[in-house]
Amino acid sequence: MASGGMILISLLAAAQATAAPAAPRPSPSEIVAAAPAAAWRDIPPAELLVMTLANGAEVTIRLAPDWAPRHVANMRALAAAGWWDGTSVNRVQDNYVVQWGDASEAKPLPKAVAATPPAEYERPARGLSIRTLPVRDAYAPAVGHAGGWAVARTGDAAWLPHCYGMVGVGRNLAPDTGSGAELYTVIGHAPRHLDRNIAVVGRVLDGIEALSSLPRGTAALGFYDKPEQRVPIARVRLGSAVTPPPAWQYLDETSPSFAAYAEARANRRDAFFNRPSGGADICNVPVPVRRKP
Amino acid sequence: MASGGMILISLLAAAQATAAPAAPRPSPSEIVAAAPAAAWRDIPPAELLVMTLANGAEVTIRLAPDWAPRHVANMRALAAAGWWDGTSVNRVQDNYVVQWGDASEAKPLPKAVAATPPAEYERPARGLSIRTLPVRDAYAPAVGHAGGWAVARTGDAAWLPHCYGMVGVGRNLAPDTGSGAELYTVIGHAPRHLDRNIAVVGRVLDGIEALSSLPRGTAALGFYDKPEQRVPIARVRLGSAVTPPPAWQYLDETSPSFAAYAEARANRRDAFFNRPSGGADICNVPVPVRRKP
Repeated sequence: MASGGMILISLLAAAQATAAPAAPRPSPSEIVAAAPAAAWRDIPPAELLVMTLANGAEVTIRLAPDWAPRHVANMRALAAAGWWDGTSVNRVQDNYVVQWGDASEAKPLPKAVAATPPAEYERPARGLSIRTLPVRDAYAPAVGHAGGWAVARTGDAAWLPHCYGMVGVGRNLAPDTGSGAELYTVIGHAPRHLDRNIAVVGRVLDGIEALSSLPRGTAALGFYDKPEQRVPIARVRLGSAVTPPPAWQYLDETSPSFAAYAEARANRRDAFFNRPSGGADICNVPVPVRRKP
Repeated sequence: MASGGMILISLLAAAQATAAPAAPRPSPSEIVAAAPAAAWRDIPPAELLVMTLANGAEVTIRLAPDWAPRHVANMRALAAAGWWDGTSVNRVQDNYVVQWGDASEAKPLPKAVAATPPAEYERPARGLSIRTLPVRDAYAPAVGHAGGWAVARTGDAAWLPHCYGMVGVGRNLAPDTGSGAELYTVIGHAPRHLDRNIAVVGRVLDGIEALSSLPRGTAALGFYDKPEQRVPIARVRLGSAVTPPPAWQYLDETSPSFAAYAEARANRRDAFFNRPSGGADICNVPVPVRRKP
């Protein structure tokens, strides 16, 4: 019989786990599913951006106003103006990013949008309450979670690392910082070398597969070669302008459930695993989110 | 004007880089493009597996006989028998894996295939000449490169980390180790918690976009819900059985070009970057490969 059909089905048949070094313990997803209502925090609808592709697929993004306030203000103004409606996904580079915006680069920005906001590539760590994750990280001396975000820190500088699904602002060479009209999200191994070099403005909470499964572009850097390959965007709206407003929650990093989840991400002891890692990459400990039940 | 169209176009217009802390230096891809012929090593065709999907797309995989010899011997026997011909891609889970093999799990294995090889999840570090990468890693005390592979090490145990594009062997719960008939490749942030829990048998060198851009499965774990959603595999052949045999090379990790490449991956100083990272995740320093010119 061909083996492996159940690869990573880790919740089944503990009786089969004869080689497991200890009794199976809950998996990260089981821990999250069992988290009590008190462990979840509402995300305000005005902190959500809903992008609807012409094919009907929806992508829901949480904005990061505490991390890149001027860029996020621009994005809210762009959504309010319907500026992205009729623009398109123009670039899909494998193991890197999907990028969208105005392919012509000629569409005027609304007056409320600052063309060159400050370089919001990091922020002071003071004012943040970071739950440190006790792991090594190649890019920062310390990593952890704060306010529902994975974060990295050195001294008094903190930033949002470029994990899978994070949303950043396209820009040209410095001193340009990008307006927020041209955006990308990560669809591969975290390109952390971009950290502190670009404004990170959010995270895809839902629907990223509508972007990550798009055909890769064959022009340089994964741009689509022909205009007809671009994927049209029907509209982008702030969550507070959608009826009914989208209701999402994140798992509070100060909750016992989050502590158990983070520990289990580093030390899998469900039946499939013979050898827990003892560590975890910050991008492998994403903050759990859910639709508010 | 909308900004960002040129995001990450890092080779242009050094004159614009007024905020760069130093004169731009070559990017990793420029260093690789300039590497002399002597820095490249041939990969034997018998160490390559060529999978052709029914739609004509080709995926080329380098096998890792030094890391999982019995599993790789099985895979060579399966390719020689044409066993995978007519099987399918059955699972596509976003930010995780694409998995292929016999969906029925009922197709008999050729007699030359050992149904339960040893657990080749790591190997002795002795006998390896590892070029250590001076970075922190969340999963191993030491990482580096050897024989054209990214590797991780603790004490005398070494293994191939689950970076983007690595190929592993599906298995059921222990003591099953998987035969090598059911395979997966990583299409998201490296799921390093699988390291040392599964046999890693290769790396996709070319064509991964034919797998990573497939529609995501909507059943549990990203399996396709309906049989007709599966993506048929026309054939899988060992490179030495293909005419003309595929000719691939990897950049020798002992070469000066590799040293410059690895340094540049950790410290981008091309015009786009204001702040080099000073470190790099091992999975962000993949061994460069090319078709032999």
